[in-house]
Amino acid sequence: MWKLTRVHDVVEKVSNLLKRDFCMVHLSLEDALNKICGADIVSNKNFPPYMKATMDGYAVRSEDCEEASYTSPVLIKLLPYHIYSGEKISVRIGSGEGVAIETGGFLPEGADSVVRVEDTVRRNSEIMIYRKVSKYENVSLPGEELAKGDVILRRGDLIRPWHLAALEALGFDAVPVLYIKASVICTGDEFVRGKAVPFTRRIVEGWLYEHAIDVKEILIAGDDPHEIASLLKELLEENDIVVLCGGSSLGSKDYSVKAVKKLGPEAHIHGIAIQPGKTTALSSIKGKLVVNLSGLPVAALAGLELVVKPILEKWIGVKYLPRPTVRAKLTKKITVKLGFRGFARVKVFTKNGSLYAEPLTVGGSGSLRSLVLGNGFVVVPEDLEGFDEGEVVEVELYGRI
Amino acid sequence: MWKLTRVHDVVEKVSNLLKRDFCMVHLSLEDALNKICGADIVSNKNFPPYMKATMDGYAVRSEDCEEASYTSPVLIKLLPYHIYSGEKISVRIGSGEGVAIETGGFLPEGADSVVRVEDTVRRNSEIMIYRKVSKYENVSLPGEELAKGDVILRRGDLIRPWHLAALEALGFDAVPVLYIKASVICTGDEFVRGKAVPFTRRIVEGWLYEHAIDVKEILIAGDDPHEIASLLKELLEENDIVVLCGGSSLGSKDYSVKAVKKLGPEAHIHGIAIQPGKTTALSSIKGKLVVNLSGLPVAALAGLELVVKPILEKWIGVKYLPRPTVRAKLTKKITVKLGFRGFARVKVFTKNGSLYAEPLTVGGSGSLRSLVLGNGFVVVPEDLEGFDEGEVVEVELYGRI
Repeated sequence: MWKLTRVHDVVEKVSNLLKRDFCMVHLSLEDALNKICGADIVSNKNFPPYMKATMDGYAVRSEDCEEASYTSPVLIKLLPYHIYSGEKISVRIGSGEGVAIETGGFLPEGADSVVRVEDTVRRNSEIMIYRKVSKYENVSLPGEELAKGDVILRRGDLIRPWHLAALEALGFDAVPVLYIKASVICTGDEFVRGKAVPFTRRIVEGWLYEHAIDVKEILIAGDDPHEIASLLKELLEENDIVVLCGGSSLGSKDYSVKAVKKLGPEAHIHGIAIQPGKTTALSSIKGKLVVNLSGLPVAALAGLELVVKPILEKWIGVKYLPRPTVRAKLTKKITVKLGFRGFARVKVFTKNGSLYAEPLTVGGSGSLRSLVLGNGFVVVPEDLEGFDEGEVVEVELYGRI
Repeated sequence: MWKLTRVHDVVEKVSNLLKRDFCMVHLSLEDALNKICGADIVSNKNFPPYMKATMDGYAVRSEDCEEASYTSPVLIKLLPYHIYSGEKISVRIGSGEGVAIETGGFLPEGADSVVRVEDTVRRNSEIMIYRKVSKYENVSLPGEELAKGDVILRRGDLIRPWHLAALEALGFDAVPVLYIKASVICTGDEFVRGKAVPFTRRIVEGWLYEHAIDVKEILIAGDDPHEIASLLKELLEENDIVVLCGGSSLGSKDYSVKAVKKLGPEAHIHGIAIQPGKTTALSSIKGKLVVNLSGLPVAALAGLELVVKPILEKWIGVKYLPRPTVRAKLTKKITVKLGFRGFARVKVFTKNGSLYAEPLTVGGSGSLRSLVLGNGFVVVPEDLEGFDEGEVVEVELYGRI
C-alpha cells in the first residue's frame, strides 16, 4: 500500500538536502542562448560611453545655433577633422566651432548636439546653419542603451537574445552559465532484449533540454537491482541529476526504487500525491537529485512538470518562463482523487468564438494519445476533486489551439 | 519622405511571391526537437499492436474466471510457456487454459484478461484463481497508446518531446523536417574597422533560432552598396532568408536597401507602419525572403516580431506557440502614431496582488535598456493612438514577472 506525500512537502524536503556546488562554465555568447545564467551581471559602464551622433552632420554647441533659421543662417568654423562612426577625437570645440561627424561618431568635448548635413551649406572650412538645433538634438546620450548599474542578468535567469546583445555591447565575450548535467536510465529487460523501445525517454530528454538541463547520457538497464544500482552510482559521479525511468512501482520486478535505496539516500520519498504519477520517487544521494519516474509517458511527464520543475526552481534558482495559458470551458468533467494534484490533458478548441477544453481520457492515464492529440493541461489542486462540466478553467498550453 | 505600408498588406504581398520549395531533411529523433515538421505523419498501426499485460500474472479467458472467489477458487491449466515483456507467442489458449505473462507481454490468442499473480496459487502446471477478472482487466488494449489513423504531426508543427516519443513507439527513427536556412549581414564601416560591434546581431540570431530557422552565417559588410549586393547575391544561393541589419533608412549612407534594389526584387516594400521599426524593408528576390532591419536593437526586434513572424507563418506554414500573456494595468499611457502598429516594452510587476505594466520609454525607441529592464511587450493596433494610464492591456511576456 502507498503512503503518499504531497508535492509541496516533497519539494521542501528534497530541495533543502541537495548540494548547490554546481559546475560553472564560461560560455561564448554564441553558445549561451537559453542557458541558466550563473551570476548577477551588472553593467559597469555607460553605453554609449559618450554622446553619439544619430545623424550625419556637424557636431556643434547648441547655444551657438539657437538663432539659426532659413533667413538668418549661423556661420560655424569647421575644425579640420572628420569623426567616423564609432570614433572619438581628443579635441575640444570652442564657441562658434564645429566638426564633421557621421552617424555613430562620438561628439567631441564641448559639443552637445548635431546639426544635420541637410540643414547646412558648406564652404571650405565653414558651414552655414539654416535651422536651429536644441541641446542634445540628433544625439544619443551616454548610457542610453545601457547605463552603469543596470542589471543585465541575475543568477538563475534564462539567457535570452537581448541579454546577449547587451553583453556584447558592453564588451563581454563570454557569460557565466550553470552547467547542470543529467543522465537517464531506462529500465526493463524487454529493452535490453530489444523487444521494446523505451520511448518515454524522448519525453524525459526533451523536457530536460527545454528546461536548460544538459542531458549527458541515456542508458538502458535490465531488471536487475545490482546492475541498476551500479550504473546509478557511476552516473552520480558525473551528473547533478539522474532520472530512472520505469520500475518505480511496488511490484516484485520494480527494481529502480530498490536500486536507489541500496545507495543510502539522505532523503527518499516514494509515492507522491499526483495523478497520474503516484509511483514517482525523489531522493537525494550525496546531495545529488535522483528521480524515479514511471515508465508510462504521461505519468513521467506529470512527475517532471508537477514535482521536478519546482525542485529545480528551488534548488538551482532557475527562473523558468511560464507556459502560455488560456481560460476555457470544460466540455466534460475532470475528476481527480481528493488530496492528489491532478495533471489532466485537454484539447482546447474554438467554437462560435468561445474557447472550450475537452478532457482527454482516451487510453487510460498513461496514454501517449492524450498528449499527442491534446494541446494543453489543467492542474487540479489537492483540495479539489476536479472540475465540473461547463466550468471555466485555466489551461496551460503546450501546443497550438 | 516615407510612404508606409501596413503590416497586413506587407505580409500578404510578400508571402505570396516567395517560393515554397524548401529543403526537406530527415533528422534522427535525437536531432528533431523543436524543428519544423515537413509532412503530415499519421499512425499506420495500433500501438500496442495487441492486448498487453499491465500486471504480472496469467493471461486467461475472463469467462472462465467470472465465478472465482476466495472461498470458491477456479482451476486453470497452464500451458508450458512464459510470455516475457514485449513478447508474443503464437499459441491459442482454449477454455480453462492460461499462460504465465509478465507486465508488458502480449496476450496470446484467446485470452482477454490477466489475473494478477497475487490472486493465484500455483501448483505445478495448474493455478487456483481466487479473484474474478473481468474482460480486459489488467490489459491495455490495442491502439491504447496510439491508434491507427491518429495524426501525430502535421506539416508546419513544431516537433515536441511527446511527438518524438510517439514516433519512436511507432518505429520511426527519423522525421521529415523543413530545413529553413537564414544568414545575416550586419552593415557598417565602423564594424569593418573594428570601432564598434554589431550587437543587434545577437537579437536577430537568437530570434531566428528560437523560431526554428537555421542560422548559417552572420557576416559584416562595409557601407558599400556593391559589396553588400554581391554578398547578398552570394548568400541568396544557399539560404531561404537573408536578413540585412543596419543601413535601412533613407540617408545617403544607408546602402542596405539600395543593395537589395540592385538585385531586382519581384517585390520590395520599404517603410512599414510599425513603431519602432518604420525603416524595415521586405523583399522577394527569386522567391527568397530578404529582410532589411534597423540596426537599432528594439526596432530590429519589432520588425521580426510584427512583420517577419507572420510572413514565416504564412509562407512556411509553421505554427509557432503563442507567448504567455497577462492582463495588467498601465502605470503610464502608451502613445503610438495613428495608423502604426506599436511595439511597446513594459515591465510587469505585482503590487497588492494586482498586475501592473510600466511602459519603458527609457533611452528612446531603439534602446536595449527597455528590452533588458522589461519583461513584456504590448502591441498597439493600427486604429488606436495608444492606451491610457490605468487601462488594462494584454502583455506578451518574454521574461519572468
